[in-house]
Parts: sequence; C-alpha cells; structure tokens
Amino acid sequence: MKAIRVPALVWFALATTLAVPALTHLAAGETSPDFSALEAAENAANAEPGPRTVPGRSIPVPNTASPELQATIAAPYRVPNWNANPKSADEWKALVNRLAAAGAAVQTTVREKLGVTLEPTVIGGVKAFIITPKEIPPANRNRLLVHVHGGGYVYNPGEAGTGEATLMAAYGGYKIISFDYRMPPDFPFPAAMDDAMAVWKEAVKLQNPRNMAIFGTSTGGGMALAMILRAKQEGLPLPAAIAPGTPWADLTETGDTYKTNEWLDNVLVSYSGYLQHAAKLYANGHDLKDPQISPIYGDFSGFPPAILTSGTRDLFLSLTVLTHRKLRRAGVEAELQVFEGMSHAQYNFNPFAPETKEAFTEIARFFDKHLGQ
Amino acid sequence: MKAIRVPALVWFALATTLAVPALTHLAAGETSPDFSALEAAENAANAEPGPRTVPGRSIPVPNTASPELQATIAAPYRVPNWNANPKSADEWKALVNRLAAAGAAVQTTVREKLGVTLEPTVIGGVKAFIITPKEIPPANRNRLLVHVHGGGYVYNPGEAGTGEATLMAAYGGYKIISFDYRMPPDFPFPAAMDDAMAVWKEAVKLQNPRNMAIFGTSTGGGMALAMILRAKQEGLPLPAAIAPGTPWADLTETGDTYKTNEWLDNVLVSYSGYLQHAAKLYANGHDLKDPQISPIYGDFSGFPPAILTSGTRDLFLSLTVLTHRKLRRAGVEAELQVFEGMSHAQYNFNPFAPETKEAFTEIARFFDKHLGQ
Repeated sequence: MKAIRVPALVWFALATTLAVPALTHLAAGETSPDFSALEAAENAANAEPGPRTVPGRSIPVPNTASPELQATIAAPYRVPNWNANPKSADEWKALVNRLAAAGAAVQTTVREKLGVTLEPTVIGGVKAFIITPKEIPPANRNRLLVHVHGGGYVYNPGEAGTGEATLMAAYGGYKIISFDYRMPPDFPFPAAMDDAMAVWKEAVKLQNPRNMAIFGTSTGGGMALAMILRAKQEGLPLPAAIAPGTPWADLTETGDTYKTNEWLDNVLVSYSGYLQHAAKLYANGHDLKDPQISPIYGDFSGFPPAILTSGTRDLFLSLTVLTHRKLRRAGVEAELQVFEGMSHAQYNFNPFAPETKEAFTEIARFFDKHLGQ
Repeated sequence: MKAIRVPALVWFALATTLAVPALTHLAAGETSPDFSALEAAENAANAEPGPRTVPGRSIPVPNTASPELQATIAAPYRVPNWNANPKSADEWKALVNRLAAAGAAVQTTVREKLGVTLEPTVIGGVKAFIITPKEIPPANRNRLLVHVHGGGYVYNPGEAGTGEATLMAAYGGYKIISFDYRMPPDFPFPAAMDDAMAVWKEAVKLQNPRNMAIFGTSTGGGMALAMILRAKQEGLPLPAAIAPGTPWADLTETGDTYKTNEWLDNVLVSYSGYLQHAAKLYANGHDLKDPQISPIYGDFSGFPPAILTSGTRDLFLSLTVLTHRKLRRAGVEAELQVFEGMSHAQYNFNPFAPETKEAFTEIARFFDKHLGQ
C-alpha cells in the first residue's frame, strides 16, 4: 500500500537511472552523450521545493585517500555486522561472541606490531584493561586516558573493544584504561552508563582529573558525552578534554547523513540495519531521546574542550557536526576533523593507514594542549 | 558503446531502485516490508571490493537545520546557473550580466537591512568596494579584511559579488575591501590572480598586514589560497589569518564528494554542469593542476592560520577537508566548521538564517584571535 504514496516525480527520477548507466564510468570532466538525459530528468525531479531526488549510481573509490584507506573504502559491506537482526537473546550473544573472538585475535597481533601491552584488571568493580605504550614521553607520565569502546551497545565485549585504545597508546604515547561495560541483551540501559561512571569515579582517584581525558568512537563517543552530562549532574570532577569520535549522539534516526550517506557508508550502511535493533535493545523501553541515551539532547554548557572526528561518507557525519556546532554554541572549545572518503569509524580500521596515525596524532596533540602534567 | 562497460551488478542495483520506492517515505526507524529486498540487492551489489553502488532515492529535508536553512535546502536546482553551457563569449556575458543584475539588486536591500554601506573605489588599479558596518568595535578599528568573491571565475561581477563581504561586515564588525577582479571570457587566467595581487600589494600599504585577513568562498576561497602561495613566492607580507570557505581548491574533478554529493548539492549539482566549462574557460589552455589555478597542489607550509567552512551536502566538502588536512599536515593552525544539510556556500544564501550568522561569527572570532590591533 505504501507504494501509492510515491510521487510521480520520484518514479520518474528512478526510471531515469536505467537510462544513463554509462555515466558511472566516465573519466573526470568528461560529459557523456547521456548526461543531457540525466540532467533533464534530475532538473525535472528537483524543480519544486521539497525532498531531494538523486539517481542510483556507482561511485568510484577516491584516489585522494591513501592506498591503505582506499582498500578500506573499497571493501564490501560487512555482513552480518551491519544488518544483524537476531531474533532472541541467545542469537544476539552467539553473534556478538563470534565477532568478538575474531576481533580479539586481531588485537593481539596489532599490539605486538605497535609495541603496546594490555593488562586485565578491575576498576570500580568493572572489568577493564590497562593499555600501555612501549614508551611514555615525560610530558605524559602523570597523565591518564579513559577509553570507551564502540559497537552499538552490543558489539566488542572484552579485548575486541580495545583496538582504539591500542592506537591511541601507540600514536599518542598515553597510558589508558579501557573498560568492558555491561551490554544488552542481559544488561540494557543504564548498565553501560553505570559502569562508565563507576570507572570514572575510581579513575579520578588514580590520577588528577586535570591530567585526564575521555575518548571513544561511535557508541563510545556518545557515552563519553553522556558521561560528562552525568558527571556535571552528580558534581563529579570533569576531565581536561574529551575526544568523541563520530559519536552516536542520537539513537533516533535524526540527522541528514543518516539518509544522504545511507548505502554509501560501507560500515553502518543504514539505520535500518542492526542500529535500529541495537537502539531498542539497549534502551529497553526508555525514551530514546533521554540525554543519557542520546546526549545531543543534553546541555553542553561547561563541557571540557573537545575534538571530534568523522569522514565524508560517515553515516554519523551529521551527528558529528551537530555535536560540534552544539558544543560551539555552548561556548565550548571544540575542533573538528573530517577525513576524505571515510565511512563510519574507519580511522580505527587499518592500524597502519596514514590517516589512522594522523587522526590519533591530532587527538593526542589536542590532549597535550589541554591536559595538565 | 559505453553501455557495454557497465557491470552486471550495477544494472542489478539500478533495477532494484524500482522495486523499493516506498522506502523513501518511511518514518525514522521504520522498516518497510520492502527493506529486505533493498538490503539483499545492495548487499549483492556491494559484495566485492570496488566502487560503491547506491540506489536512487528521495532524501527528505532534515529537521536538524533551522527553518530558514531548511527552505534553502528544499529549494529546487538553480537553472540555468548550475548547468550553464554558453556556446560563445557573447552568450556567457549575456548570462553573467543578467544574473549579476539580479544579484546586485538583492544586495542593496540586504545592506539596508543590515546597516552596511558600500562605496565604489579603485585599489591598485582594480575596481573594488569598501564595505563598512554601521559600527566598528574598538578592537577592529585598525583592522582591515580583503574579500574575494566566488562564482566559478565567471559569475558575480560588480556589486553582485559583495554579498559575503556585507555579511562579514554586519556579523563581524570589520571594514572590508571587496574587489571586482577581471574574469573570462574576456580575461582568462592569470588576470583574476594578477588583480588579486595588485589589490593585496596596495592593501598592505593601507593597513598593517598583521591586522589583516583574506577571506572568500568557493572560487574566492581557492583564490585566497592561491594569493598566499603567490605572496610567499614573491616575498610579500602575509595576512594574519585566512578564511577559505568551501574553496575551489582543485579545478579538476578530484575529490570524493564531487561524486558522493553529486545531484544532492542543489547549488552546484554536478561538476558536469557549468563548473567544467568555467574551469576550461578560465584556465584557457593552462594546466588545471597549476597551483595558481588549483592551489591544493601547492606548498602550504608557512601559511597563516586558517578557518574553513563547508556543509554535509556540499559538492566541495572533500575539497574543504582535503585543504584542511593538508594545512594541518604542513603544521598550520587550521579549524574546520561543517554545517548540517548545507550544500555549496549556502551560509551566504539567506542573510538572516541563524546558520549564516553562526558561520560568520565563528570566522570573526577566529580573526579576532589571530589579528593584531
């Protein structure tokens, strides 16, 4: 029945995609004999105010990224990660554990190559890892970072969640606590945030919070923002800086690139994949717009300086820039870095891509500027 | 003959766009009965390393922009601006003059509403305008900005090119020189850059260059970068800061968002529109990768601090972030701001949209931080 609601111009534009397939293989600047047909069709489809109609197309791998990043951009969609829709708690756990076992195995190799060590521990009653680089520069001897891993509140338990902390240790020279917060289906909201705050309360006893920062990507970026909101509320000390990478700051499908980068981002692909299921599983009946779940709806005043990272193909590019703008409007010092061609969180994917080192070097430089010693 | 080169999977993906039109009208988070068909088709089309296949679709106007910006985002493609392809010098001039007359008329009204005045003058032998706000704050009394207008090296001669300077005067409180550089078809490269340098050489006699900044959008952003390259080369004083907004830093079709934001950006729409024709008309046989034409190929070391502005739908988002990254890699202090849902240069479109004021307030703050008094 839904098909009845499709306006004629959408049908028209969709139909024209079949008429001009050769356009997808043109050299830069070359105008196909078919371009005029596409031009006319799209002009007609976009001649009135309203939604934007875009044709289906094949988009090349950009040569403006490093060869290593080009390989990441060219990679197929990650099935079953992006579109997982397990039908039971047991199915969720089986999938998550299988992916986590593979992820943890990779981490062992990466740590060896980067000279980073990992030591399991418990902090504030929460399972955690101490990640240490081969050498800690003198300026970082009294500094400590807290890392919050990503994975849509469902993926990356255990060592599988430590990859980003390894990269920061290696490229930034910091000692890091990476904690293994509880996740659904067994432990929905607010378990993850309760664990995060238990770790933070204990961490500020281990080091002066003025010498500390919190960082994390995706769900880890959203949780970093929610941790600051909750620390403000509870009167706890704040860190000297934060680095929310492409933060899942809104668990509802709100933000332009949820749509404009849909099917283009080869990591998350679409909100209609696992994200919507993970959001419901985590929220467990709570309002998705609760600022502890979607921190974009919180009050950012008084936040510590922040550096945000995203990519031009990132499904969460809008969430990143909306968070950046909201921080700036609240008077917070906030920097933004956006990498060419990157889909969601891909600065964490290949530990040896130049863009990976660049992203973490920038974050480390930002921390160095704002953290006490 | 080109159609033969289209791989089967592209045909497959294009065909599937016809099967799932209802998806374009779903509420956030809702999964259509058709989603599984689209999911299967796109998984199949993106199952091997290579180009990304995306389906045709209708993309809603985001509610995460202000109502004023939403109207700008919803606006139809600008015909004939985006796809102009005049067949003679006379046709170019007729089109450019017609659009410029309309643009200049709008500027009169905007200046009145914002309390900004414009005075025609000649600086270094180049036609120019002095743009002055109603009130200049004490900190800006000895400061002077130089504005370089945009328009693909063909559009916006005369007062039509002064809109951005008016906004900066109004929201930043600066006195500004906006110059009316010569353009093709009568005056191709390097006339525009020769005029720019003649203005700069004269401007640094009017004020201490440490109290000055250069700013501009699109072609104006590219020219601002090329001016710094040439000033370095000629041993001229540099300004204390620059603000290249969504700079046309590469006149070849190089950069991911030339493709990913094609048909989505409702201002430029596609490189295959007027841009490719304007690039050729301007370069007039010179190599498009000459750093004076495409400054992304130049050496950014020693550049003054820079703030760059773009939007998530901008065809030049890649050029903006590539310029930002290259500045940072050269050790230059560089900030990036990206606005939600914005196509190319739309922070210049509605003088009264909150995002317009926000963009110029940020640039003014950056200048205030870096300029002497």
